[in-house]
Amino acid sequence: MNEEGMSEDGVIKLLEEARSMDIDYRRVFSSMCTIPHPIAVKAYNMFIASNAGDPGIFKGTKKLEEETIELIGDLLHKRDAYGYVSTGGTESNLQAIRMARNIKKRRRPNFVVSEMGHFSFEKAGDILGVETRRADVKEDLTVDINSVEELIDENTIGIVGIAGTTEFGQIDPIDELSKLALNEDLFLHIDAAFGGFVIPFLKKKYPFDFDLEGVSSISIDPHKMGMSVIPAGGLLVRRKEDLMDLEVDTPYLSSKSQYTLSGTRSGAAIAAVYAVLKYLGRKGLKKIVGRCLDLTNELVDRMRKFDVHPVGEPKMNVLALNVPNLDAVFKELWRKGWCVSMTRRPRALRLVIMPHIDGAIIEEFSNDLGEMISNIV
Amino acid sequence: MNEEGMSEDGVIKLLEEARSMDIDYRRVFSSMCTIPHPIAVKAYNMFIASNAGDPGIFKGTKKLEEETIELIGDLLHKRDAYGYVSTGGTESNLQAIRMARNIKKRRRPNFVVSEMGHFSFEKAGDILGVETRRADVKEDLTVDINSVEELIDENTIGIVGIAGTTEFGQIDPIDELSKLALNEDLFLHIDAAFGGFVIPFLKKKYPFDFDLEGVSSISIDPHKMGMSVIPAGGLLVRRKEDLMDLEVDTPYLSSKSQYTLSGTRSGAAIAAVYAVLKYLGRKGLKKIVGRCLDLTNELVDRMRKFDVHPVGEPKMNVLALNVPNLDAVFKELWRKGWCVSMTRRPRALRLVIMPHIDGAIIEEFSNDLGEMISNIV
Repeated sequence: MNEEGMSEDGVIKLLEEARSMDIDYRRVFSSMCTIPHPIAVKAYNMFIASNAGDPGIFKGTKKLEEETIELIGDLLHKRDAYGYVSTGGTESNLQAIRMARNIKKRRRPNFVVSEMGHFSFEKAGDILGVETRRADVKEDLTVDINSVEELIDENTIGIVGIAGTTEFGQIDPIDELSKLALNEDLFLHIDAAFGGFVIPFLKKKYPFDFDLEGVSSISIDPHKMGMSVIPAGGLLVRRKEDLMDLEVDTPYLSSKSQYTLSGTRSGAAIAAVYAVLKYLGRKGLKKIVGRCLDLTNELVDRMRKFDVHPVGEPKMNVLALNVPNLDAVFKELWRKGWCVSMTRRPRALRLVIMPHIDGAIIEEFSNDLGEMISNIV
Repeated sequence: MNEEGMSEDGVIKLLEEARSMDIDYRRVFSSMCTIPHPIAVKAYNMFIASNAGDPGIFKGTKKLEEETIELIGDLLHKRDAYGYVSTGGTESNLQAIRMARNIKKRRRPNFVVSEMGHFSFEKAGDILGVETRRADVKEDLTVDINSVEELIDENTIGIVGIAGTTEFGQIDPIDELSKLALNEDLFLHIDAAFGGFVIPFLKKKYPFDFDLEGVSSISIDPHKMGMSVIPAGGLLVRRKEDLMDLEVDTPYLSSKSQYTLSGTRSGAAIAAVYAVLKYLGRKGLKKIVGRCLDLTNELVDRMRKFDVHPVGEPKMNVLALNVPNLDAVFKELWRKGWCVSMTRRPRALRLVIMPHIDGAIIEEFSNDLGEMISNIV
């Protein structure tokens, strides 16, 4: 580190250089994040110095967090759910499995999740010392309830349902999982990090939330389809005592205990989530989801003309395309400045159609992809 | 959640109402956070949409993070340290203990930390399934190396040294801990969340960083004395392989694996840390620390006139005052709008003199406190 500081202009110039190396979202189909809503950015800046981990001082922030959880709870059919604004899906998933572990107290604990579940469940397993068991999926890429049942044993602390898989955007049969959880007296966590702000606005209804009696907790990320500023996840639980189970004492703070993972944490992120939800309402959120779905369908239609078809029927704005010569096409897309990714099993071209994507980009992308396929194959 | 959204003005008004309930930092002596530096806020906004968890897309952010770790590593006598910008001290401490646990692979692991260590070590212990053993402190409130030695057994995975305790701002004898760690072949983590940006700028030199061969990892928080935006912690490690031990595979991302706790994480926080360090340089950071120490000393002097003395000699801008009738004084201070906290053992009035505190506030506060003591006692 230099002895002397730099001028503000000098620092800004360095930052601009770095920013120019970041790929802007315009041609990004590989991310579940997007450009935050302007109202989120405004709110973030209003609370930029706020520490939500110190609620005795930041009482207004605390109130916003309570109201935010109520808003999200309402969306998930439990207005009086407990919870907090976390740093994202990984923290929420980890905390949910931690709750299940602390409640069940098994010597060699395990939990069961679809093989399509996010890699954060591997992380959570390692961190918590809990075995992560992966259940098979059916042909439609949702979890096979029979496989889940087979993996459950006396050391199982909980099961997980995915409401919007990262790779294929599919929705597990959460109603079946709910029944199973109730029968087996297991904690059921729903990873709706992506789908939480999508599924409630789909024409077809998929039961996935607290409406199902067996659902114990839900992860839902405002910094994905909730148009908020990173870091903003959500962890909601049905029973207050499950969350309280995570509490540790917090001497020398303005509160007495803490169940969040972080100590100091962004109050600004909370304000941003609150602002977006208030500003958009259900109608605004639905409109954003509707637009993404329309563009997804448009892309599917355009690709059918090149005889390229989706893997399964897309349920939301996550699309896997069966592309011939996948590796070569993938490479060529990146070369042309398209950020895309691949699914693993089955292997396919993975596209997330986030709110930063528009019609012109869909047209340009499908033309590029179509041409590539014609040339490469 | 309402069907209809609200107007922008309406949302801003709600946010302003909530913000007015937050206590502003002017009279806050109980927090280790402060108002972020303006250059940090500017940088934050420039990268507000950046996801550091997706380094294949946010290549510039990735570069900034590497350079930031180099800057902090340099400050901690290891320019080529590995690490990343975390969400704060809790994540850094947790990840360090996780490294130690994964390296040592004991069936019933434990680690040893001073009874003065932050409560995040209890959290980390619970999450990781590792027993947290608390060592006694000496009269000077730093850890007693004999007590640490006594607590070490064949299941000990590591030990922790505190460089700036949360309650008293004291610095453990890290050089002794370093020797012990080397002798016993143990992982040594230093929690310098608060002290990391203070100790390098003190007149008296305290060995606490990578200069000591036994130090394996360090937690240092830019969102405390580093003047940055929440959430910004730092985890630095000596050996790359220790960090790599935390890696999980990350399919469908632009990178192959991930050792951070979060998946999606704020690139803006990284830019903010980078900007502050570049803008201030060592000189600027030293000036901020110097000013906080001067004010701390001024407060000590002023209180001596009321026959009120510090518990031990304050080493940094954390002050514990031996106040008669502590509970009543504490209550009265809050009633008068002063945010203060208490230490546990010994019980005392705890004051953190952060950069948002100025001379006028020190004068006003010491007069108020002095008067109260005269009246209450």
